[in-house]
Amino acid sequence: MRKIELVQNILEANESIAAQNKRLLDEHGVFAINIMASPGAGKTSLILQTMARLKGKLRIGVIEGDVASTLDAEKVKNEAVGVVQINTRNMPESCSLIASMLDAALKKLPLEDIDLLLIENVGNLICPSEFVLGEHKRVVVSSLPEGDDKPIKYPMIFADADAVVINKADLLPYVDFDIAVFRRAIEGLHSKVKLFELSCKTGAGIENWCAWVLKEVEANAYKSASLNISLEGGGIR
Amino acid sequence: MRKIELVQNILEANESIAAQNKRLLDEHGVFAINIMASPGAGKTSLILQTMARLKGKLRIGVIEGDVASTLDAEKVKNEAVGVVQINTRNMPESCSLIASMLDAALKKLPLEDIDLLLIENVGNLICPSEFVLGEHKRVVVSSLPEGDDKPIKYPMIFADADAVVINKADLLPYVDFDIAVFRRAIEGLHSKVKLFELSCKTGAGIENWCAWVLKEVEANAYKSASLNISLEGGGIR
Repeated sequence: MRKIELVQNILEANESIAAQNKRLLDEHGVFAINIMASPGAGKTSLILQTMARLKGKLRIGVIEGDVASTLDAEKVKNEAVGVVQINTRNMPESCSLIASMLDAALKKLPLEDIDLLLIENVGNLICPSEFVLGEHKRVVVSSLPEGDDKPIKYPMIFADADAVVINKADLLPYVDFDIAVFRRAIEGLHSKVKLFELSCKTGAGIENWCAWVLKEVEANAYKSASLNISLEGGGIR
Repeated sequence: MRKIELVQNILEANESIAAQNKRLLDEHGVFAINIMASPGAGKTSLILQTMARLKGKLRIGVIEGDVASTLDAEKVKNEAVGVVQINTRNMPESCSLIASMLDAALKKLPLEDIDLLLIENVGNLICPSEFVLGEHKRVVVSSLPEGDDKPIKYPMIFADADAVVINKADLLPYVDFDIAVFRRAIEGLHSKVKLFELSCKTGAGIENWCAWVLKEVEANAYKSASLNISLEGGGIR
């Protein structure tokens, strides 16, 4: 009982910090996407493809969450307006980014120069489902080699997602994966989720994903501008 | 500080229950392997292949850990002496099996009829590294599509492993994966780890893995028999 109460307190504290993060992001006209997935599903590849396609349209910042190493931050640093690597290995939560980690990372980024912030969460389909960060959208990347049963086996993270990206579509001839089975499982959890089937390796399907991201950023910028007529600079170029 | 102390208490309590589990397993001559991996790396496929190859040599029981669903338990039930599914969704730890869950599962299995217990942990490369269960060996399954950088990004789980299985070797022509890079990363963490490269889909390489499992079970049975001369039944057929 005490353990459950403590977990409850941690989650409430996290939500309160997440709400502060969201306010800070909105004040600076930054739209944030929390990208969650299994290890190796292709979060970093999706970020690289998204930056390549939306270059000149959006100014993009990146936060890289990993247990250890700076491999991913190094991959994205040339294209991003700003990059912060968070290593969770010695933090109280090592299995997910939490709102206080985002709070610390936001202080290191030039928020006034960023339209879109891509937050790569730690590779894990369980813990990140428990922690909101202050993001505007939650996206899960799933990949064909992982199998079409993942939404049934990890329902919490898929149920809360605004969009699901099915990556590594180029491997369809070589793995046992039935897109219809995956789609039915997702829709059974959450009928309004956006589903994108693509390959970060070949680039097939990336344009639909990027069109959705751009539309969401623009809709949020319009909303922020309406709410805050003193907003200057930042926003969409 | 209080959080860190609490985590310490949880881990100590877990270790104490794990030690009891180990004693119970040894009393019954059961050799237990804790199989850990990312979602979809092939834990269940490895268990199915292992059971198929070692049928007639060992009596095998299985514990299936999953956040939700009984899909995996259903897949293995025909070949196993006993199967217990553990769903962690509403448990205090949902991201890993812990020793108290194994304790409860062991009470449901016919231990006297089991030589080898294969414990499939929840799909996660982070949390299971923190919790011992009472197992004799810890094995990590990694798969080619996840990438050769996984030991660098998730060092704790690989550093503690007795063996690492590199699965989905049949996908080598279609993914970017350098076995030498992976091997160097593993050996940098832990030079004495056993490494098995195989494909659960084609069966290639499975015989080396099964030979190792059989050797370890036999070595432990010999040790248990030496320690406890009253041991009767059970053991290797």
